[in-house]
Amino acid sequence: MLGTFTYHNPTKLYFGAEALNGLNEELPKYGKTVQLIYGGGSIKRNGVYDAVVKLLADNGKTVVEDGGVMPNPTTEKLREGVRIAREHHVDLLLAVGGGSCCDYAKAVSVSVHEPEDPWEKFFVRYEDPEHEIVPVGCVLTMAGTGSEMNGGSVITNHAAKMKIGKVFDERVNPKFSILNPTFTYSLPMRQTVAGVYDIFNHICEQYFSGTDENVSDALSEALMREVVRASRIVIRDPENYEARSDIMWAATWALNNLIGCGKTEDWMVHMLGQALGAYTDATHGFTLAAVSLPYYRLVMPYGLEKFVRFAKAVWNIDPAGKTDAQIAEAGLCAMHAWMQEIGVACTMRDLGATEDMIEGIADATILMDSGYHALTREEVIQILKESL
Amino acid sequence: MLGTFTYHNPTKLYFGAEALNGLNEELPKYGKTVQLIYGGGSIKRNGVYDAVVKLLADNGKTVVEDGGVMPNPTTEKLREGVRIAREHHVDLLLAVGGGSCCDYAKAVSVSVHEPEDPWEKFFVRYEDPEHEIVPVGCVLTMAGTGSEMNGGSVITNHAAKMKIGKVFDERVNPKFSILNPTFTYSLPMRQTVAGVYDIFNHICEQYFSGTDENVSDALSEALMREVVRASRIVIRDPENYEARSDIMWAATWALNNLIGCGKTEDWMVHMLGQALGAYTDATHGFTLAAVSLPYYRLVMPYGLEKFVRFAKAVWNIDPAGKTDAQIAEAGLCAMHAWMQEIGVACTMRDLGATEDMIEGIADATILMDSGYHALTREEVIQILKESL
Repeated sequence: MLGTFTYHNPTKLYFGAEALNGLNEELPKYGKTVQLIYGGGSIKRNGVYDAVVKLLADNGKTVVEDGGVMPNPTTEKLREGVRIAREHHVDLLLAVGGGSCCDYAKAVSVSVHEPEDPWEKFFVRYEDPEHEIVPVGCVLTMAGTGSEMNGGSVITNHAAKMKIGKVFDERVNPKFSILNPTFTYSLPMRQTVAGVYDIFNHICEQYFSGTDENVSDALSEALMREVVRASRIVIRDPENYEARSDIMWAATWALNNLIGCGKTEDWMVHMLGQALGAYTDATHGFTLAAVSLPYYRLVMPYGLEKFVRFAKAVWNIDPAGKTDAQIAEAGLCAMHAWMQEIGVACTMRDLGATEDMIEGIADATILMDSGYHALTREEVIQILKESL
Repeated sequence: MLGTFTYHNPTKLYFGAEALNGLNEELPKYGKTVQLIYGGGSIKRNGVYDAVVKLLADNGKTVVEDGGVMPNPTTEKLREGVRIAREHHVDLLLAVGGGSCCDYAKAVSVSVHEPEDPWEKFFVRYEDPEHEIVPVGCVLTMAGTGSEMNGGSVITNHAAKMKIGKVFDERVNPKFSILNPTFTYSLPMRQTVAGVYDIFNHICEQYFSGTDENVSDALSEALMREVVRASRIVIRDPENYEARSDIMWAATWALNNLIGCGKTEDWMVHMLGQALGAYTDATHGFTLAAVSLPYYRLVMPYGLEKFVRFAKAVWNIDPAGKTDAQIAEAGLCAMHAWMQEIGVACTMRDLGATEDMIEGIADATILMDSGYHALTREEVIQILKESL
């Protein structure tokens, strides 16, 4: 570890098939009124909603409903959530769902006592909260974003065609998260593999970056191998508890600051994917999948040594008789084959993008300069065209 | 992850060559009086003491001295520390040293407001604290124990010839820990490698256990490989920042609950080592080293598959043409060769034990039943004789 950094992650995790009982330990810590945040209603079909509502009642809570959180939570929905929280003076925001619900809950949590417009302050101007933050708890029903153990929140502004992620400090982390792998059994396979690729790319964004860190990179490789291994089981056997739980646990540690310790991080695939998402409203994991290979092939020469290491450590590429460039390319080919195998390989066109959107998506792409190579606008256009 | 568990680790870490400046962020959170805990005075020679005292003065703190913490902190010293804390109504216990100082600070922290005898309550009866806990901060000067990010504390009672570790919950964790790898440069090499073996064995205790967990075990293997790699650099180049920091960081994550998630854990090597330590007062890491190989060779047949995995994943043993037992044995041989290379391979006799102590050490050994095989007393005697 060459870098200087701090690590502080106070989120308490309850993991396992009985994890929901953790609510009995957590709920008594908070006041009476709970804003129950969820998405399109799948939790009403799979029994999770009823189980949570029963535990809230058992613990004497008054529930304020806040359903209908969309896959890419919008500024309009955020303002609605803030209005609900203010009107009912809620004591706890309980997100029951995937990363979108959790991201949304965190965005509401910092906005309830904030007099300014939250989109402008937190997402456009990227400022930090200065007022009281309403506590957030999370019951996770999808593995992928890692939102359950970090301070990140991604909000989409359709009017401005912007999808922006803000990384808040640990004050905004969920106070607790409930991780029950069986809650992900009923997730459509398309959502499952989107989550899997999101996890994998979170690790890549931290792994492929300007400075190497021995311990962080070794942990990253271990997590990548586990995600790949478990995903191959889950696509054939969606109710395989062990594989579901390995994916869920890897997702949490892929984006809770650990594997980024001491590193500059890239996040350029996320910037491209989020711009694509702002234009198409496509599922996050697929937007990342669509742009990944053209991006990594473009930056590979600038970080060749690391791509060689990736090929050998994660994809078991035999280096015998190959140049470094060939080893690295074989690694990316193996990654692509895996993406095809689990069903995330896709083009931007598959997600609804058209050629005339390319200039706009390029405009909406925030350019990072902490990876192996800072992209020019021309290179962004090139990547988007190759991804189409 | 097959198991059900919770993970909660609220310790804030400041890492790097400038990490001590973290005190300027942390000290204002606590009251005026700080009990400054340290060991035999090496921090006065290497400048760390002066730097800490200056930061305490800059932050307007009144310092109450509590030096002389011995490598294996005793019940007598614990009672002295509690007396100091009570007399001066201290607001923060600041441990500056290695794991012993940190363990001691945590033992004091739970005992200040405890009317009962702390040895009896916490270490013999293994009860949890019910009274106010004085906050602990840590400035680490040795890598090994992981005490900087967990709730563990080991105390030795020489009269009873008992050395007992108590794992407290996260309320007892240090609130913050300062990890500056350069502070470990001046550590004698014998202490450095004792710490390295302590780290390695912490991982083994969690890795070699009754249930496997894919993610935890993969992270464990990554940490073991990093510790072995970095230790080989440090023994030749004690001021190699990168290797020192890799060891320091791996030490923290080797024993902060992460890699034990979902697992039953063994800790039998620690039980044997602690009994040996109670009789000889030898350095902790060496007591573990002395008993490890006879113990692992004895339990290997009961967990053969895992020892095979260990041999291949950590020691790169080529399985071609070998039986599982041969692969596993080759792994332990490679581990032994590494222990010899870094200078931790030793016998109990090297540490001052004699044959007439064996019965007593066996009596002082707490028997665990969560590894691959629950030892009988006869097997404990056998291991101790083979370790002599």
